[in-house]
Amino acid sequence: MKKASTYLFIWFNASLIFLFSASVMASDSSLLPSWNDSTSRHNIIQFVAAVTKQSSPDFVPAAERIAVFDNDGTLWSEKPVYFQLLFAIDRVKALAQEHPEWKTTQPFKAVLENDMDALADSGKKGLLQLVMATHAGNTTEEFSAIVKTWLTDAKHPRFKRPYNELVYQPMLELLDYLRENGFKTFIVSGGGIEFMRPWVEAVYGIPPEQVIGSSIRTKFEIRDGKPVLVRLPEINFIDDKDSKPVGINQHIGRRPLAAFGNSDGDLQMLQWTAAGKGKRLMVLVHHTDAIREWAYDKDGHVAGWTRHWLTQVKMVGQWLT
Amino acid sequence: MKKASTYLFIWFNASLIFLFSASVMASDSSLLPSWNDSTSRHNIIQFVAAVTKQSSPDFVPAAERIAVFDNDGTLWSEKPVYFQLLFAIDRVKALAQEHPEWKTTQPFKAVLENDMDALADSGKKGLLQLVMATHAGNTTEEFSAIVKTWLTDAKHPRFKRPYNELVYQPMLELLDYLRENGFKTFIVSGGGIEFMRPWVEAVYGIPPEQVIGSSIRTKFEIRDGKPVLVRLPEINFIDDKDSKPVGINQHIGRRPLAAFGNSDGDLQMLQWTAAGKGKRLMVLVHHTDAIREWAYDKDGHVAGWTRHWLTQVKMVGQWLT
Repeated sequence: MKKASTYLFIWFNASLIFLFSASVMASDSSLLPSWNDSTSRHNIIQFVAAVTKQSSPDFVPAAERIAVFDNDGTLWSEKPVYFQLLFAIDRVKALAQEHPEWKTTQPFKAVLENDMDALADSGKKGLLQLVMATHAGNTTEEFSAIVKTWLTDAKHPRFKRPYNELVYQPMLELLDYLRENGFKTFIVSGGGIEFMRPWVEAVYGIPPEQVIGSSIRTKFEIRDGKPVLVRLPEINFIDDKDSKPVGINQHIGRRPLAAFGNSDGDLQMLQWTAAGKGKRLMVLVHHTDAIREWAYDKDGHVAGWTRHWLTQVKMVGQWLT
Repeated sequence: MKKASTYLFIWFNASLIFLFSASVMASDSSLLPSWNDSTSRHNIIQFVAAVTKQSSPDFVPAAERIAVFDNDGTLWSEKPVYFQLLFAIDRVKALAQEHPEWKTTQPFKAVLENDMDALADSGKKGLLQLVMATHAGNTTEEFSAIVKTWLTDAKHPRFKRPYNELVYQPMLELLDYLRENGFKTFIVSGGGIEFMRPWVEAVYGIPPEQVIGSSIRTKFEIRDGKPVLVRLPEINFIDDKDSKPVGINQHIGRRPLAAFGNSDGDLQMLQWTAAGKGKRLMVLVHHTDAIREWAYDKDGHVAGWTRHWLTQVKMVGQWLT
């Protein structure tokens, strides 16, 4: 970590695990300047050189240089909880006056009373109710405006900054670096696609058409003579775990050349990437810096599954070079 | 129509209807060379100039220049029937040996006996059975290979050429022209997304991640230690009529600046485009040339709804400038 950005301030420990080996070390210090001068950094630089140099045996045409990034815990922070849950909580409070019944109905009662234990007790069903009550019922344009306003007004409880400033400087540099080398960068997140689109272009340089995420159904309607898309309280797609390769295929139709994640939810996306022909890059972000961010890796592994996956990978040895 | 291409040979009558008015006529004859020197051609050129010139009051940043194209009847022919149905018919014949029961079961019996009336009688239900029997049950990579082989082997009944050569030269020029002016071109088709992706990049210059279409569900699996996506016999999304704006929003997350269609299935996509702020371009392709293609417009209107839609549009007068 050599250089701070005025815009972004959270840093993770950039000791990334690489499921890809390298022998040559890169030396240009102007590349990925916030990264430790580590094997991870050198492996990335070596990978990019290998797939972009026309004379390289591993050369890949620019059109096929697809890089996919998880969002929560990979590009921006996910602590103390997913930011989208904090958004839903704030929305419940903002809408409470219109819903007097929420004072006595879970999971809304828990939210209004700041009773996080009761909220946790409401489980997946409660979470779904919360999402539908706060994310549906409006048009796509109205929802986008609500997200933008929230990002202007709301502040992170620990860092007292807007949530979309809690992004990782080394990863921003990585996004830029890959794009400068002809990669097309995509987000592939379990988070809501319409929750991300209003801000990711300004923050990450990723346009809305390169965002894949979870979604609820929408319905085309003519309202007052004007076509709108109404957001319905029905799940359309949950972009997590074994659905991430499904979402990638549905949206991109090409297998990624590089994939970046940090949790169980990214396992299958990394496997899907790794199973492609030729050189592929799979990266896991570790969270080990309690001072500047949070340290929540389990036994030095991401959510405990890294070692398990490494075993799986060995079963198809040609994945790794 | 001034110039023929060696690669593509079907031409429609390029007298396109424009739901957009213009006063200045463009004069550069090197632009859209296969187009008649018509108001349509001039309107396109004027629109592109208006949204791309930095000093123009209608200027739109490049990132927002999204152009969406229907495929069947807009970019390639749809006669005598949708080519994807002909693909399904050929697949039934190829798979018949593995399915002796098809000899006595509709709609397969009809296909095997070339009884198009009986096939039509099987209705939507029969069509769905046909699609599921021929499009599902394999992996995404296997299906892609099947489509590629079909395009190499199969010939159009009238023109005796591969189906993906039956594309419209004026529209190819339009795609190139828009891209040269910073537009991102997308297909938004009722056809199968995985039926289009194997060939549209080579033919239209549209990469797989810019294809939106109908789809069946897929499921992530590890087969023989290798991750695959298996195609299930279940509808995921039908990208037609009022679902086209839904698909556009889901996939692109930005409203198109220009939309091109030819049928009822494109109405809502054009409405959705037209309802955006500022200048928008909505184009209908007419089919009036029985010699070089087919003449199947109804009363000079596309499937009879053009006039109806024009009435609707007038209700929101600000759509048209």
